[in-house]
Amino acid sequence: MQPVQVGIIGLGNVGTGALDILAENAGDIALKLGFPLQVRALCSRGIDTKTLPGAFASALRTANWREVAEHPEVDIVAELVGGTGVAREIVDTAIARGKSVVTANKELMALSGAELWDRAIAARINLAMEASVAGGVPIHAVLREGISGDRINTLYGILNGTCNYILTEIESRGASFHDVLAEAQKAGYAEADPSADVDGFDARSKLAILSALAFGERIVPADIYTEGIRRVTPVDFEYAHLLHHTIRLVCTARKTPAGLLLAVRPSLIPQSTILASVRGAYNAVWVRGKFGADTFYYGRGAGPHPTGVAVVSDLMRVAREIRSGSPERVSPFAHARLGEYKPIPVTLHRSAYYLRFRVEDRPGIIAQLAAALAAENISIDAVLQLPNANWRDLPFVITVEPASEESVRAAISRMAELNFLTEPPLAMPMEEPL
Amino acid sequence: MQPVQVGIIGLGNVGTGALDILAENAGDIALKLGFPLQVRALCSRGIDTKTLPGAFASALRTANWREVAEHPEVDIVAELVGGTGVAREIVDTAIARGKSVVTANKELMALSGAELWDRAIAARINLAMEASVAGGVPIHAVLREGISGDRINTLYGILNGTCNYILTEIESRGASFHDVLAEAQKAGYAEADPSADVDGFDARSKLAILSALAFGERIVPADIYTEGIRRVTPVDFEYAHLLHHTIRLVCTARKTPAGLLLAVRPSLIPQSTILASVRGAYNAVWVRGKFGADTFYYGRGAGPHPTGVAVVSDLMRVAREIRSGSPERVSPFAHARLGEYKPIPVTLHRSAYYLRFRVEDRPGIIAQLAAALAAENISIDAVLQLPNANWRDLPFVITVEPASEESVRAAISRMAELNFLTEPPLAMPMEEPL
Repeated sequence: MQPVQVGIIGLGNVGTGALDILAENAGDIALKLGFPLQVRALCSRGIDTKTLPGAFASALRTANWREVAEHPEVDIVAELVGGTGVAREIVDTAIARGKSVVTANKELMALSGAELWDRAIAARINLAMEASVAGGVPIHAVLREGISGDRINTLYGILNGTCNYILTEIESRGASFHDVLAEAQKAGYAEADPSADVDGFDARSKLAILSALAFGERIVPADIYTEGIRRVTPVDFEYAHLLHHTIRLVCTARKTPAGLLLAVRPSLIPQSTILASVRGAYNAVWVRGKFGADTFYYGRGAGPHPTGVAVVSDLMRVAREIRSGSPERVSPFAHARLGEYKPIPVTLHRSAYYLRFRVEDRPGIIAQLAAALAAENISIDAVLQLPNANWRDLPFVITVEPASEESVRAAISRMAELNFLTEPPLAMPMEEPL
Repeated sequence: MQPVQVGIIGLGNVGTGALDILAENAGDIALKLGFPLQVRALCSRGIDTKTLPGAFASALRTANWREVAEHPEVDIVAELVGGTGVAREIVDTAIARGKSVVTANKELMALSGAELWDRAIAARINLAMEASVAGGVPIHAVLREGISGDRINTLYGILNGTCNYILTEIESRGASFHDVLAEAQKAGYAEADPSADVDGFDARSKLAILSALAFGERIVPADIYTEGIRRVTPVDFEYAHLLHHTIRLVCTARKTPAGLLLAVRPSLIPQSTILASVRGAYNAVWVRGKFGADTFYYGRGAGPHPTGVAVVSDLMRVAREIRSGSPERVSPFAHARLGEYKPIPVTLHRSAYYLRFRVEDRPGIIAQLAAALAAENISIDAVLQLPNANWRDLPFVITVEPASEESVRAAISRMAELNFLTEPPLAMPMEEPL
């Protein structure tokens, strides 16, 4: 049977990973599809210096992406360049030429997904983006079709492997954020400029895509309150463990009567939950549906081959659609509900909170902090101080009963006037996946 | 847009669960599909006595399944009867009439899936069976399409919620198998005749279906070595914990150079693995691919609504296929590899083993057991005895280094001649998901 022809643009980590799989797994792929996938054209900077699998000797090689995106024989264009500049031009060009697109580009899809999807539907082509979120975890397939009969109420994600690696290293070794980050950078696990990871922006893009898919709403990164992990210290894990919790960078999307609550922030989660068992550079998504109750999905968050599996599986799915003559079947951004799930401000978030203080030793500290909380009608659940600690060199913790983010922030503002605080309090919500 | 018409046969737990979702979630379903699903006909024993959602007032109600399976307006028949008798007739009839089929029937698909799939392909209709394995976990969607680019090497499943519930109760409370089973029966979690669950046959059917899907091989339940959980005692968990392991009824499908190794049996798994965090009536599947490394899927194994989500999601997928004019896209049993993944005897299984002995107190016991192992070239890893135990009233454990099931069985045969054993040794493999 005639092959479906693929053009690949971008041969970085993900591109070479996908290419390895297309070469080594070609027999299985053809067996599963009933026809082969043929790599017809490859584009990369410095393509002449790359050693490519021998299987692709007859493919066009070029450093000019237009030769791939406009190639008359290419059926599917895989955009594996990343970013929102050239990548956008590539996707636009492919759609304009009636070619389906597979992309691993979280920034582009988070920012412009709704618009690109509208154009894909109008052009009757497919647009697939499994590789844009959670690497090897097929969470798009799950949300698009696997549990499409359910109505999702809450989604928690651990979507940045670098942050999860850093947090679990702080947890297991008691090392500081800065020491673990420096080691991770040295080992190549973290970027020289770590901000996109450790400040939560990478996770935010992924949550924007997943919540669009889960709730059928148009969501952009700016809708999502985002806070990174720089302030989390070993002692926070000690306190979290006392509370039978751990700390993760949790991406939350939760339906509330007022709308959709979206946040990326370090949060306490109970150690007994399966989400707490996600350690190291893994990613995971926990979903609670109205009918199906809780399901959980877990795997490698990144890496050439896990992400390559997502790209190749998308190529296979799109190739099937092309062969059966059907355009994109599931549009994550297009079944908008007229604002039913409109994002709401994070100040409406309501949960128990963990508040950690560093103070100068003096009398009356607890009384004054308690007064600030009481003034906002926040009830204290517990005051914790680790054994052998004293006020001077070890922080202490107050946990409070469920309260709104707004009132917690107001209480923290009141505390800003208290001159015994040596740094602003660290507030983390205590989430309750079951 | 015109609805796709559904006929539902069987209104037990799964059928009523699916019907609830079709009624309550109708708006979302139509939004996601771009057209409604309409329940055109319903069949159940005692249909006249059932209270059905008002949304289905205009549906045909009958106690005669043929009126649904042969209904000229029905596009998709949901077979939710179970078993291999009438259910088989229903599926055959629907296929013969050119109707697509959604089924939750693990026995039928495990026994006759390959044949039914061949007929579905010939008839150019869809056959969907997400609900047949692991209730609310969309593991079919994952294996069919989500990670289809990968080549799967190993699959571990916890596929029977009743067994997992019983084992975790034995673990957490130290209660006996018989006591926990009796409680579970009283509470309605276990059947009056528990054999299908506790002897592993239910899990075996599910593993047959999943391994066919994962490896593209025709596998039937008789290919799978199966052993239940009746012999697992609280003290086995105490020993397992000493070894930093726990015990689960593990369904294993593993590619080996000789072929596909298939087994359902109580096994030790390291406590540090995510599989060990599956407690209570949950189901989970852990997959290791050649490229994507390990991924993990988890959720409710049963229950009207979780299983109903699987049925409704299948109805939606099949409705999409019908609208786009395409027949079944992914045939789990049809891309046979000419025996590359042929099932092999479990005696070729190779792993470390846990051997638990109950003995009468006398001198030389360890020496004689060690001699039986040495005679089969099996190396002892550790001899364990719990503190405060004595030979008479507490069993003890020998763990051995990786050996073949065949040699372990031969050693156990040798031990049968030792008259100090008060019951046959319990041998459990120690599995190593990472």
